[in-house]
Amino acid sequence: MKSSTSLKLRLPVLVFGMEVVMIALYAIFVTYDDNANAKMQNNVTDPMDNSMYRDYPFFADVQVMIFIGFGCLLAFFRFYGFSGMVFNFLTAAFTIQWAILIQGFFQFYYDGQIHLGVINLINAEFACAVVLISFGAVLGKTSPVQLLVMALLEIPVFSVTEWAVLKYIRINDAGGSILIHLFACYFGLGVTFVLYRPKLNQGHAKEITSYQSDILSVMGTLFLWVFWPSFNSALTLKGDDQHRAVLHTFIGLCSSTITAFALSAIFSKKGKLTMADIQNVTLAGGVTVGATVDMMISPVAAYALGIMGCTACYLGYRYLTPFMAKRMKIQDQCGIHNLHGLTGLISSTAAICAILLAKEETYGPSMYQIFAHRAPPMGDPKLLELQELIPGLKPGLGRTAKEQAYYQVAAIFATIAASAVGGVLTGLVMKMSFMASPTDDDCFDDELFFDMPSDFDKKTHKVKLN
Amino acid sequence: MKSSTSLKLRLPVLVFGMEVVMIALYAIFVTYDDNANAKMQNNVTDPMDNSMYRDYPFFADVQVMIFIGFGCLLAFFRFYGFSGMVFNFLTAAFTIQWAILIQGFFQFYYDGQIHLGVINLINAEFACAVVLISFGAVLGKTSPVQLLVMALLEIPVFSVTEWAVLKYIRINDAGGSILIHLFACYFGLGVTFVLYRPKLNQGHAKEITSYQSDILSVMGTLFLWVFWPSFNSALTLKGDDQHRAVLHTFIGLCSSTITAFALSAIFSKKGKLTMADIQNVTLAGGVTVGATVDMMISPVAAYALGIMGCTACYLGYRYLTPFMAKRMKIQDQCGIHNLHGLTGLISSTAAICAILLAKEETYGPSMYQIFAHRAPPMGDPKLLELQELIPGLKPGLGRTAKEQAYYQVAAIFATIAASAVGGVLTGLVMKMSFMASPTDDDCFDDELFFDMPSDFDKKTHKVKLN
Amino acid sequence: MKSSTSLKLRLPVLVFGMEVVMIALYAIFVTYDDNANAKMQNNVTDPMDNSMYRDYPFFADVQVMIFIGFGCLLAFFRFYGFSGMVFNFLTAAFTIQWAILIQGFFQFYYDGQIHLGVINLINAEFACAVVLISFGAVLGKTSPVQLLVMALLEIPVFSVTEWAVLKYIRINDAGGSILIHLFACYFGLGVTFVLYRPKLNQGHAKEITSYQSDILSVMGTLFLWVFWPSFNSALTLKGDDQHRAVLHTFIGLCSSTITAFALSAIFSKKGKLTMADIQNVTLAGGVTVGATVDMMISPVAAYALGIMGCTACYLGYRYLTPFMAKRMKIQDQCGIHNLHGLTGLISSTAAICAILLAKEETYGPSMYQIFAHRAPPMGDPKLLELQELIPGLKPGLGRTAKEQAYYQVAAIFATIAASAVGGVLTGLVMKMSFMASPTDDDCFDDELFFDMPSDFDKKTHKVKLN
Repeated sequence: MKSSTSLKLRLPVLVFGMEVVMIALYAIFVTYDDNANAKMQNNVTDPMDNSMYRDYPFFADVQVMIFIGFGCLLAFFRFYGFSGMVFNFLTAAFTIQWAILIQGFFQFYYDGQIHLGVINLINAEFACAVVLISFGAVLGKTSPVQLLVMALLEIPVFSVTEWAVLKYIRINDAGGSILIHLFACYFGLGVTFVLYRPKLNQGHAKEITSYQSDILSVMGTLFLWVFWPSFNSALTLKGDDQHRAVLHTFIGLCSSTITAFALSAIFSKKGKLTMADIQNVTLAGGVTVGATVDMMISPVAAYALGIMGCTACYLGYRYLTPFMAKRMKIQDQCGIHNLHGLTGLISSTAAICAILLAKEETYGPSMYQIFAHRAPPMGDPKLLELQELIPGLKPGLGRTAKEQAYYQVAAIFATIAASAVGGVLTGLVMKMSFMASPTDDDCFDDELFFDMPSDFDKKTHKVKLN
Repeated sequence: MKSSTSLKLRLPVLVFGMEVVMIALYAIFVTYDDNANAKMQNNVTDPMDNSMYRDYPFFADVQVMIFIGFGCLLAFFRFYGFSGMVFNFLTAAFTIQWAILIQGFFQFYYDGQIHLGVINLINAEFACAVVLISFGAVLGKTSPVQLLVMALLEIPVFSVTEWAVLKYIRINDAGGSILIHLFACYFGLGVTFVLYRPKLNQGHAKEITSYQSDILSVMGTLFLWVFWPSFNSALTLKGDDQHRAVLHTFIGLCSSTITAFALSAIFSKKGKLTMADIQNVTLAGGVTVGATVDMMISPVAAYALGIMGCTACYLGYRYLTPFMAKRMKIQDQCGIHNLHGLTGLISSTAAICAILLAKEETYGPSMYQIFAHRAPPMGDPKLLELQELIPGLKPGLGRTAKEQAYYQVAAIFATIAASAVGGVLTGLVMKMSFMASPTDDDCFDDELFFDMPSDFDKKTHKVKLN
Repeated sequence: MKSSTSLKLRLPVLVFGMEVVMIALYAIFVTYDDNANAKMQNNVTDPMDNSMYRDYPFFADVQVMIFIGFGCLLAFFRFYGFSGMVFNFLTAAFTIQWAILIQGFFQFYYDGQIHLGVINLINAEFACAVVLISFGAVLGKTSPVQLLVMALLEIPVFSVTEWAVLKYIRINDAGGSILIHLFACYFGLGVTFVLYRPKLNQGHAKEITSYQSDILSVMGTLFLWVFWPSFNSALTLKGDDQHRAVLHTFIGLCSSTITAFALSAIFSKKGKLTMADIQNVTLAGGVTVGATVDMMISPVAAYALGIMGCTACYLGYRYLTPFMAKRMKIQDQCGIHNLHGLTGLISSTAAICAILLAKEETYGPSMYQIFAHRAPPMGDPKLLELQELIPGLKPGLGRTAKEQAYYQVAAIFATIAASAVGGVLTGLVMKMSFMASPTDDDCFDDELFFDMPSDFDKKTHKVKLN
């Protein structure tokens, strides 16, 4: 029934409802942090020392990735370019303002208020990346109402998980391989498992690309590629840590990219390149270096991780995605399990190895900054000794390398469990009848939710396709 | 008559003529400012303290907005993509070099020379934004010669107005809601009023979009959206002021964006989304927070301003633009009155409220930096007291909040008057017969001014359209 | 024979072979530089003083130019958009990782290791720009295997030349007019001379653009335009030098752009604009200011250089490129000789003039920083005197202006000779039979190396064209 997908009431009710909620919560809870508060400035404050100047450049780069990179990448379907790009825009803008609140309660709440600065925006954009990755699993088969509901529910689950893992398990995960990529992946798979559409396993006539849509999607890939070093380094410690994060990400992407081309050629029947591989598999290196991105793993390790992640990702697209769709009822539309799941697992494993191998000979005393939980606890004489070498070193938990490794493993499992369960429950909500979910026939078609320009002729493209 | 639109002589004569003028003026008047002058560097100069490092990142972001954001956004017509994007390029490149001179005489002139640094470039790009916004009113109906003439005349009118308002009325307008958006809007409306084309009120067969042009235009929107925080914060005070400017702009854009989607759905007959709304109305929040962007208005106020500006903008597109075209002979092609005029007025009003409500309890002593004209005048003992808290605080005019509010009102009316009159006069010049103005039939058609590739078949698209 | 262009074995063998080599070399030779090495940080290291924060913003801008700017610009052919954009991606990713190694041996090698930081990445991206410019000469007529082989050979030749010129001839060339643009140009011409295809001198049916491909290519131009100031200033001295580099590049681009429009109109039969001019000639100013970009040439000189470079470039496209193709067997597909060769020569000449005219009255003592080789040699009492004014001034060679000018001339000839010979030899390797070189018929056609979406119908486009 067509009428059931009208956005006329559903979308405004949801949006305006949420706006009322958010105005109330922002009014009561959100204030400026010290770096954005005029009252906190005085005669010893140097304006150029404002945290804004450390954070904003990275924020701006991540903005480009979220809105333009993801937007173009998700516009790869021939008849679904408006939807891919525009639902990404809507979902991102909604998610960020919501994440500012929800993450704010968990991470930036003190004195009864959420304190807001550019650093919160970076965190919110990371939460937004989580939702957009999950979106990839159900691209083409969901209404904007469903997407907003997904964001509405995923952000709290994510924020609780993030908070619990960072506060109680305490891990190293600078590039977010565990908390961003694994979480997003298994949440998305949980959702798509519930929204399973058996008929679409045979493929859909509109599930194709066009010359222009493929080019647009590659542009999205390129924007993600170019700014990925900023993404992976945005939340590391400043200084040499952030420097290494840039180097590793860049090297991992370079080796990943040429590997993707080689694999695309080798597995092709006619020895030609496939655009889908170039759009997705090239990026695998960026995820794979994520969890170790600030560690002293050496450049060659980043290089090798790029190749390994890319290979796993490519094989996943080729063999695992079809298998999961047919046998496990998990239709992973954009293959997020390959680009974020498999690579995230490799990255997490690499981080465990790097943690086990970390030594003071390699890192110097700043080892206890990077692996903050290995720093001696308050009162330990070793702490005072270290603090002379590294002023400002915070007391840690005195964990050994092995202990830290166990906690990393615990975090991986906890994250996967929380996200998968959260995804399934969210999927159940999204499946409710008033969510404007498209019928199988109307999937992958802009016309369902957009007034289309006259050169988008549904009849013509149906004729062409059949 | 087709021959009258040839650019063969007109464009080169104008361009080369202006180049001779500019070479002469640059040679005589333009030199480096101290931060760009090798001779001014000495053993106490720290290279990293150069103003370049404070200004260039914002300049680069604004560059992307001007050349790529505007360029793609204005390419939304199906048969006018070359013109939209390329005339934007030409006009921008011309305007900036002209504005460096003209603004230079008013703002950066001392010791008989214009002193040039990246800060001048930022100012020139803002002047450029003014011209490009005005361009939006006459998109599709003007030749590149007319556009250059418009830029040639608009820049002096703008520079005088800007100088007079900043020097004599002295206002708060960090994001340029008054001086940029209101000026650009009413100047553009003045021009289009004179260039009124009665036949085009019935619509034009080529005044349509295509699937690709709509996507391109959304990309332009996204580039503007992503870098708007840099635009609104480029000329604020450094430190917490700039920090707040980023936060407010971002929050205003977020709430504006989801509101635009909701309004687009609610007013649609079939409950579908309209691409034109997403391309334009989503951005309203960025303008609406403009005049208050550096003030302590609280995050929730930015949120609410985004919603209000967006709603006014949407209703303007729906009801006011058609009314103005039919009843007032003002054909506002891109609806700049909605996106820049109505939002600018709301923003200016909000700034007046924020000025009236500003208190030292909220701002601390730095209130007298943000509201610089409220600072005590030279000789006032209160000034010395404040300078101990905020070293470098400049003496002001000792205005009360109410006085400042009156000056803001005066600036609004003065700006609107100057721009509207300037626009009408400029329109009269643009209407002269040798300006290569397109006939009504040839409007919205790239073929008039471009050698077209073979897949752009005029006959075909005419057949399709009739 | 179609089978000979299959990438199934050739590409993977080359890529995986190179990966093995690179893993070995990275493992043995590549380590972190002090700014990226955790062990080098101690209690006097300020994280925000890390070189990362000086270099990364410029690196990110250059990334956008390399991957998105070049990628879109090279996608201007109607049936070759995938190849233009994607081969650019592959070549760039490959070249950078290779250049990190090879340049590393020449410029960043000490204590038996290559020391890696973001500064190396910038240098590698510049080397990458060299390869991509050369690629422009043979666009549409080469396989990805050939392109990788070209990169494989060009990088060592370039690195040796760069090292020899900088170490032994010692020149001023901040924007790389000699070492980047002239080298890339004559190397590319050498390659295309060897790969001469006589049949293609009559033109090829697929050597055309489309409406969408022209727009995409203009977007590439705009990205290059917008970030060119970052490119030209990335490797200058910090402070006022970098500040001037931004100003000059921007002014040169502005005057160049409006000149290109005027020339395009004046030489057109019907007085219309040609997109190819807008895509290429507008950028000439960026190259032309290159060699003098950090000198005190005055803003008007940058303005005039923009006009001169643009005019030479335009006339080159119009008269020289066809002449070279017909009479000299040099088919310069994208006209790199106009955009990089002629402009590079003008720029180099301008630099010689600027060097001869440089005086302490204009530059102050920092003249000996910019023209480092004119600084007095170690032991000269003048050196101690200058070092009081400019602490940290390094001893130079005590060259006179005239001597430095001779060395510049020597560098120009040496660079052209090395690149042309290197290009011819590389062309001979690329011509070997197993390089998957396309037949004349298959040139300019994506279908040869890509699985194409169904709307790319070879038959249709052939019918349309004949």
